[in-house]
Amino acid sequence: MSEAARSLEEVGVNRCFGGWHRRYRHRSASLSCDMVFAVYLPPQAERRPVPALYWLSGLTCSDENFMQKAGALRLAAELGIALVVPDTSPRGVEVPGDPDGAWDFGHGAGFYLNATREPWARHYRMHDYVVHELPQLVEASLPIDACRAISGHSMGGHGALVCALRNPGRYRSLSAFAPICHPLACPWGEKAFTHYLGADRAAWMEWDACELIAMASERLPLLVDQGTADDFLATQLRPEALRQACAVARHPLTLRLQTGYDHSYYFIASFIDDHLRHHAAALLA
Amino acid sequence: MSEAARSLEEVGVNRCFGGWHRRYRHRSASLSCDMVFAVYLPPQAERRPVPALYWLSGLTCSDENFMQKAGALRLAAELGIALVVPDTSPRGVEVPGDPDGAWDFGHGAGFYLNATREPWARHYRMHDYVVHELPQLVEASLPIDACRAISGHSMGGHGALVCALRNPGRYRSLSAFAPICHPLACPWGEKAFTHYLGADRAAWMEWDACELIAMASERLPLLVDQGTADDFLATQLRPEALRQACAVARHPLTLRLQTGYDHSYYFIASFIDDHLRHHAAALLA
Repeated sequence: MSEAARSLEEVGVNRCFGGWHRRYRHRSASLSCDMVFAVYLPPQAERRPVPALYWLSGLTCSDENFMQKAGALRLAAELGIALVVPDTSPRGVEVPGDPDGAWDFGHGAGFYLNATREPWARHYRMHDYVVHELPQLVEASLPIDACRAISGHSMGGHGALVCALRNPGRYRSLSAFAPICHPLACPWGEKAFTHYLGADRAAWMEWDACELIAMASERLPLLVDQGTADDFLATQLRPEALRQACAVARHPLTLRLQTGYDHSYYFIASFIDDHLRHHAAALLA
Repeated sequence: MSEAARSLEEVGVNRCFGGWHRRYRHRSASLSCDMVFAVYLPPQAERRPVPALYWLSGLTCSDENFMQKAGALRLAAELGIALVVPDTSPRGVEVPGDPDGAWDFGHGAGFYLNATREPWARHYRMHDYVVHELPQLVEASLPIDACRAISGHSMGGHGALVCALRNPGRYRSLSAFAPICHPLACPWGEKAFTHYLGADRAAWMEWDACELIAMASERLPLLVDQGTADDFLATQLRPEALRQACAVARHPLTLRLQTGYDHSYYFIASFIDDHLRHHAAALLA
């Protein structure tokens, strides 16, 4: 067993679709706390390393929401793609949370960035965790190779966009469900960025998908699904800002407005197979 | 709108796979309390009434576990089958629960029978609710017809077997995941039956699938999946008792022991499509 594998404590295991859903706890160097993440290893991983889709979840979620509710494991098993699902923030009693106990900041709301302001900067480094530490760990300890795709929902859709746009060459494909497209101009983003990055909005631009698309050196085709009955559509998510940014930058975007769908996992489940096939086309090419 | 439809208060709605997941609250006459149940209406229900699979959940569950975690809605939408998912017991402050606050009796643990002993007999009449009141309600108020199938998990697997075996002609097909096959001879069943039915074991036989199979007048082919890594297999579920009862009675049984699978919804999700196709063959014939 490798040193990386020894650093993983298995905290759950379920056989599923001929493969394995596994949850691990480990000490995260990036986040200076213990973290739990989940992987789904398809049956093909018994014979060889497989490519992986990294899924970033939304506000209040843990690793469990996507694995339990998205219905993604069936097709992942068929395609031979691993799923890697981190938590949504650093956790633990030593990690500061929202001063008012709100659910849209702090625990469960790391926004997949590297905080620069205290008291957040010590722990809230989810970008480093998701982009570097977690892949390094799973690729060293599990039958998962370095062919990576990334997707996510809401805050995690923002995270997926930003992780890929900031790290050209690191992901082979990219998609999002109902992403927070323009966090520097919506209430959730403004609250989080003010705390994590400070009041100077110039520092916010490098964590905003619409700003990053303008200067992207890589043009990964972007698949985005957005429900039209999503309560957060106009105020928080702002897909039209993403559409405009992509149009100006000539960034390839397929933005699908799904009539009548909301912000829930019932929406995600309805279209996850399309996203898995989008990623499979890049990962298995 | 019919009187039945007026009695339903919609408490949730999500578009899913082109159809609708809906949750309703209503006053139950059988249970003398307010109840919440969920339905999934496939796209075909916009044009005509569709047949329904009734799903009975296990201990501690509500209507939500199956809808969120089983991954059943995708194929139900394709096949044109509605899903009707009741809660697992009467609920509310006026409904007595386990005297010791345990999770295996009382709230969330109605065992799909009609209790005869006080203080349970007034509310705990889940058999009447599931077999009569709920179908009558949904068939009068929603685009759901009287072609019914039934399935369930664990305590709900027991419920599905007993509901079908006690009511020949009422269901066109029957299946179960990890059912409590012989409740009169396992700790969960003994505890529940002692409270709900009293100490006289003769009264227990009419709520035990293995006993009912011996005298069944209808021979619905039975599909049962059971994980071999299920922690409750030997002590609570006892599929070999069901196998023996079916062998003696020459009742058609397909009992599949699924290697390495546990008692969770990861197990159910892995095989739910087979069950949906089993029911579709009977419902859509």
